[in-house]
Amino acid sequence: MKIQLECIPCFIRQALDALKQVTNDEYIIQRVLRRVLKETSEFDFNLSPPTMAQKIHRIIKEECKSEDPYAGIKAQADECALELYDKIKNKITNSPDPFISSLRFSIAGNIMDFALFSKLDKELINSSFEKALHQAIDKTTAIELKNELKEAKKILILADNAGETVFDMLFIETMNTKGKVYYAVKDSPIINDATVKDAEKVGLNRVAKIVSNGTDAPGTILKECSDEFLSIYNSADVVIAKGQANLEALNNEIRKIYFLTQIKCSAIGNKYGYNVGDWKVTTTDKLKMLQKEISE
Amino acid sequence: MKIQLECIPCFIRQALDALKQVTNDEYIIQRVLRRVLKETSEFDFNLSPPTMAQKIHRIIKEECKSEDPYAGIKAQADECALELYDKIKNKITNSPDPFISSLRFSIAGNIMDFALFSKLDKELINSSFEKALHQAIDKTTAIELKNELKEAKKILILADNAGETVFDMLFIETMNTKGKVYYAVKDSPIINDATVKDAEKVGLNRVAKIVSNGTDAPGTILKECSDEFLSIYNSADVVIAKGQANLEALNNEIRKIYFLTQIKCSAIGNKYGYNVGDWKVTTTDKLKMLQKEISE
Repeated sequence: MKIQLECIPCFIRQALDALKQVTNDEYIIQRVLRRVLKETSEFDFNLSPPTMAQKIHRIIKEECKSEDPYAGIKAQADECALELYDKIKNKITNSPDPFISSLRFSIAGNIMDFALFSKLDKELINSSFEKALHQAIDKTTAIELKNELKEAKKILILADNAGETVFDMLFIETMNTKGKVYYAVKDSPIINDATVKDAEKVGLNRVAKIVSNGTDAPGTILKECSDEFLSIYNSADVVIAKGQANLEALNNEIRKIYFLTQIKCSAIGNKYGYNVGDWKVTTTDKLKMLQKEISE
Repeated sequence: MKIQLECIPCFIRQALDALKQVTNDEYIIQRVLRRVLKETSEFDFNLSPPTMAQKIHRIIKEECKSEDPYAGIKAQADECALELYDKIKNKITNSPDPFISSLRFSIAGNIMDFALFSKLDKELINSSFEKALHQAIDKTTAIELKNELKEAKKILILADNAGETVFDMLFIETMNTKGKVYYAVKDSPIINDATVKDAEKVGLNRVAKIVSNGTDAPGTILKECSDEFLSIYNSADVVIAKGQANLEALNNEIRKIYFLTQIKCSAIGNKYGYNVGDWKVTTTDKLKMLQKEISE
């Protein structure tokens, strides 16, 4: 999907947040923010939100000579997630349908998104996990996914954020599949998205083969992805995409993709009639039908 | 005060809000937003928030050939306020201290601010009026103002928003002063600030002499004000400034000014240790003392 007008001020806010992660020097922040404002004024507004974010965060990384502006907040998110691991694993194991519960906690983990929230808000994170087992989701689609996973030989999960990885790990453990699971992360840091290093750090390599998608965009922009990644993507029996940026990047894809995400802003909400705060389990097919209904 | 870094994305959001008030044409909105982004990238970041807002809204008015982008929302605010008039007047009359109550409702009316809120949110407005009589305020300063008003021959109120004018009118009625009351509004439209026409429309001329301050800035930028206004400002026994933009523009003034405002953003909150949502009754003297304490 292309950016909505509302994305523009949000990206400027996001740039300021990122700059504050890297430096306290107001002079540097002002200088880089000026460049972001100027370049944004010249951007193609038909870009998708992940591409726009990629462009803006590249400016920040270049100007601040910082490879990973969100390293500190990613470490905090990992720590927070690992603290919750045993408790959540216990809840999943003791629930009537562990698969559905682990899927719910994987969506709960998607709250760890610092594109939208400027800092680690433990209260917000805890509330996401507390409501995980009773938040409304499309259970039919979740069961459809459960059934497809039973037969799948090759499963690809498109990761979103650091910290969230811990709950994806629980999801994969509970999946208990005979198929091979690939967990695709970003090649280099973008916002607080997980990289190979981030995913390995929490032990995700124990349950899946971690692969880089070859890009530094939040959300999977296929035309920029590596051949190695694309070969897995094209041959996977099931693809599961985590997070809003993946939904924004892949909503019009031809192949079937399952999306697991929290809806965090009205820009995407408006497009599909979703509300901010909704938890979505949907597929490319269902999004296309929804889009058709809305435009009719 | 000069703008905080947080003001910059907020101004871009405000520009988008204003553009949406004027047109549904996405092409025009994009074109003007690009100009706003580019010019903002070149602004002096030592400007005060009201000056920055003035510059941005001038671009919008010029580009869209719209003299009053917020005319529609101002009319809605007036209507909403006039509907509440009798009920609030009754509450004031039947309260133990009508002066303090009317001052409280004048601050409650400051919620009608579309620099920060994109649309008329009746729930938000009602909640502001419902809590008016028990919201924490600095009562000592309110009583100091009450006492000064008893002796004052010339009283100047620096208005803020359309709609809010109705509650300032109740405040002036309840003041029951023998002094002459001047109600200074903006010379031409800026955001949803009241102009002479707006103040007259709700009948404010019945209780005060409405004067223009000669500018199109939100908040009173003295160096741009008309001589007529400045002569009243300099000779007034009591000056009362409504709203956050006036506090931002006049916080360092030498003369004593009473500020009545709701705190609506963390930029000003951070400066004085206020929280978003606080209601403030303060003065230039008290702000200077606070600033001194914070910097020590």
